[in-house]
Amino acid sequence: MDTYSIRHEIGIKTPPGAVYQALTDTKKLAGWWTSDTRGEGSRVGGVLEFWFGEYCKKFAVVELQQDTLVRWKALKNDAPDEWDETEIAFSLRAGEKQCYVHFSHSGWRRDDGMLPHCSTKWAVFLLSLKDLLEKGVGHPAPNDVQVNHD
Amino acid sequence: MDTYSIRHEIGIKTPPGAVYQALTDTKKLAGWWTSDTRGEGSRVGGVLEFWFGEYCKKFAVVELQQDTLVRWKALKNDAPDEWDETEIAFSLRAGEKQCYVHFSHSGWRRDDGMLPHCSTKWAVFLLSLKDLLEKGVGHPAPNDVQVNHD
Repeated sequence: MDTYSIRHEIGIKTPPGAVYQALTDTKKLAGWWTSDTRGEGSRVGGVLEFWFGEYCKKFAVVELQQDTLVRWKALKNDAPDEWDETEIAFSLRAGEKQCYVHFSHSGWRRDDGMLPHCSTKWAVFLLSLKDLLEKGVGHPAPNDVQVNHD
Repeated sequence: MDTYSIRHEIGIKTPPGAVYQALTDTKKLAGWWTSDTRGEGSRVGGVLEFWFGEYCKKFAVVELQQDTLVRWKALKNDAPDEWDETEIAFSLRAGEKQCYVHFSHSGWRRDDGMLPHCSTKWAVFLLSLKDLLEKGVGHPAPNDVQVNHD
């Protein structure tokens, strides 16, 4: 079956180690995606929960390569969700002036549902990660940049 | 051949007619993507040029449906470019609280080159379009939000 991916890339003026920490340390994760982040992101097999009010996105950490790669797999919730069994990967590459972060959210079974909205929101959150690491303050939910009026 | 797409969606608190104008009127286009926008976007067959310093992205307008759809096809430049012959579409849908703008940039022949960077930048520019229409001021290049350090 064809699947679809969201891809993004940003460059952050910080060493890969700092980016890796912001993707694996629960407190740092809470600084850029959602303030209510729970669980354990620093070991393979750990489960991370990202809460948005009453709604939770839950992942298993499936691969970690120190300062290079972080991979999560979305776990099923009680209700079916387009994210079920999709995968998120952050790939880090040190450049001359910055650490490049290549992001992918792959395994979407359709591209005409939530994918376009989530693509825009991932850009917003990756820029929040960039701000956290470059300016010391991110914009995690519920203080994230809104892309629509719901 | 498999091709790849970038997709985004935003919701703008304005009537579809205002969004349509911002996607077809050269002066309005200059208010959110790049300040140096030239050409004719309000008729099929018109050519639009988006200049970023010495670099130009050139499109033919291939389809217009008043207040509903705007489609452009990227024209070849002198130098080969990953954007050559890709297509951009803006699809507008009136909602209760807002006009939803579904964006796609399709026909990419690879997803491991410029696509991830451009995906992030398109989110930035669509939020600039949203700001232009909701707050009266966008952030077109060269005053756009930077996603890396080049």
